[in-house]
Amino acid sequence: MHAVIMAGGRGTRFWPRSREKKPKHLLDIVSSRTIIQETVDRIKPLIDPKNILVVTGRKHARELIRQLPEVPAKNIIIEPVGRNTAACIGLAALHIQRKTKDDVMVVLPSDHAIGNPDKYRAVISAAARAAERGNALVTIGIQPDGPHTGFGYLEGSNSTGKIAGQEILRVKSIREKPDVRKAKAFVKSGNFFWNSGMFIWKASVILNEIKCYLPDLHAGLMTIREALGKTSEAKTVEKIYRQLASISIDYGVMEKAKDVFVLPAEFGWSDVGSWDALWDISAKDAKGNASSGGGEIILEDTENSLICGTNKLIALVGMKDVIVVDTKDAILICKRGQSQDVKKVVDALEAKKLKQYL
Amino acid sequence: MHAVIMAGGRGTRFWPRSREKKPKHLLDIVSSRTIIQETVDRIKPLIDPKNILVVTGRKHARELIRQLPEVPAKNIIIEPVGRNTAACIGLAALHIQRKTKDDVMVVLPSDHAIGNPDKYRAVISAAARAAERGNALVTIGIQPDGPHTGFGYLEGSNSTGKIAGQEILRVKSIREKPDVRKAKAFVKSGNFFWNSGMFIWKASVILNEIKCYLPDLHAGLMTIREALGKTSEAKTVEKIYRQLASISIDYGVMEKAKDVFVLPAEFGWSDVGSWDALWDISAKDAKGNASSGGGEIILEDTENSLICGTNKLIALVGMKDVIVVDTKDAILICKRGQSQDVKKVVDALEAKKLKQYL
Repeated sequence: MHAVIMAGGRGTRFWPRSREKKPKHLLDIVSSRTIIQETVDRIKPLIDPKNILVVTGRKHARELIRQLPEVPAKNIIIEPVGRNTAACIGLAALHIQRKTKDDVMVVLPSDHAIGNPDKYRAVISAAARAAERGNALVTIGIQPDGPHTGFGYLEGSNSTGKIAGQEILRVKSIREKPDVRKAKAFVKSGNFFWNSGMFIWKASVILNEIKCYLPDLHAGLMTIREALGKTSEAKTVEKIYRQLASISIDYGVMEKAKDVFVLPAEFGWSDVGSWDALWDISAKDAKGNASSGGGEIILEDTENSLICGTNKLIALVGMKDVIVVDTKDAILICKRGQSQDVKKVVDALEAKKLKQYL
Repeated sequence: MHAVIMAGGRGTRFWPRSREKKPKHLLDIVSSRTIIQETVDRIKPLIDPKNILVVTGRKHARELIRQLPEVPAKNIIIEPVGRNTAACIGLAALHIQRKTKDDVMVVLPSDHAIGNPDKYRAVISAAARAAERGNALVTIGIQPDGPHTGFGYLEGSNSTGKIAGQEILRVKSIREKPDVRKAKAFVKSGNFFWNSGMFIWKASVILNEIKCYLPDLHAGLMTIREALGKTSEAKTVEKIYRQLASISIDYGVMEKAKDVFVLPAEFGWSDVGSWDALWDISAKDAKGNASSGGGEIILEDTENSLICGTNKLIALVGMKDVIVVDTKDAILICKRGQSQDVKKVVDALEAKKLKQYL
């Protein structure tokens, strides 16, 4: 079994900690390990690090090699440019086939947090067993805890039984991020799950599906396959990958494919999509404050706040529901619930050409 | 005419900018000049800097000499310990008498801000003319703009006429910081003024008053007078000053004295008593935000806030009514209206023995 960790994200939503050179998955904002280190730590009991591939952009490769000493450097697969998940997964499938002829591949985002890793591994194992059997495209669906409009949803039909103790459902439809009204209906129905972006299938199976629904992209991948291991590899990948369609695997393949399954799961999943989401999953004191960083933190009459410090002393007086993030060269102070607007700060920095802060 | 600038304050209320080594009057928080530099700049058109005395503690003398190059170093008078305003003013009076036999002394706090310096000088000039004439203890009373409980009040009686175009009233009573009920009654009556802590009198007059109401303190001052200019000066001041009663001139003398007058004034006075008071007097943008410091400041959906930066970028998102102060080693984030509780942070630092931040 192979794991493919997709590590192409920019993660501007964690500015000022996330920067172009350090996207979210390379940050130790959830624990003392970085998010991608935790991702590897979490899957390692199931999949040997020498079978873990990481797909990333050129400028993050060196840092990934530094952070993941257990993963062989040759397993860091470079995308010359980001081309969304269909191309990324296709490229990883080629590498797996070249290495093993064929194998189950567990596709994982690099930047999620999981509260219960044991449960997580049980679900992944069951999904892998389902994928081994045939042509199944297996997804992990998160039991929603509210009508979240920031996630895609998977609609399950009746149970097709259990596999390794885990219920498995055929997927009836895949929905992109809904509006609130739809999201409420989804959650109410009980048949909808958040699309976790984790996929389990055989490399051969997903390449066939790509051939069927994205033939041009598949043709490009075949050209790359020819070049793998040859002196022309770098040049070919550089040229061809750039020409591939930028399309998500969900939209390009999953929404159309026949044999799509979902394993409903509850293992404390979070996409850690914003500073707000980080507060949600952080350990908090009796007043709802979550603090991290090496410096002193003094809180007077302060509640439900997130403080990510460096070595500086940070003192809050009379503050409720705020996010404070200190870094070497920038400080963010944001109302909790408005952290999606941190993107506006990044936009302002781009507009002002203040590249040193990006 | 001499000026005596009292510069003994600690100013913990401006933490983290104010520190033990840098109390409020030594900070450039109101403008690009420090508050004591502005105090000297403001009085200079009336009083030659060689006639400006500054009374301060030993540990601030060097910084004062640096900040006030126009004031002769010998005019920086060192108090071995802080002994409140009666002793401070008495000591300054001795120095003035030694230098000039007798002169009008304009006693000024070092750490106030004045919006209209021309009006201020007109009032001080008039007060000096009143003080020259005889035994008057002249004070400056600020027209209150609300029932502030953080100031003492001067109760004026009927006008005794005008001097140099400025109304002058006999003081009927001097009140310490009132409760809200009393403060409201004071303001409603129209006869009460904030005690600005500025006093104008002849050196001989105030020493006589001290002799009358604080005879022990006066005796100590006389011992010091004997020693001034002699080799025993430092030793005598060190020994005697320490033994003087620590009492304010208001409580020790003014409340009891007969010939106390007040000149009502409106010249944009502020005691700059807290970060909140600084926001009050700061220039603000259309959304009520006041920013300073050398770094970039980015405000998204942010209102009525005070941002005092250093060279770091500071970004606020969705914040209303906050005070943000960055320094080399500490950051304060405080709800506007609660800046009096910054003192609690200082207390916490003292309790934790984190002296490097004090």
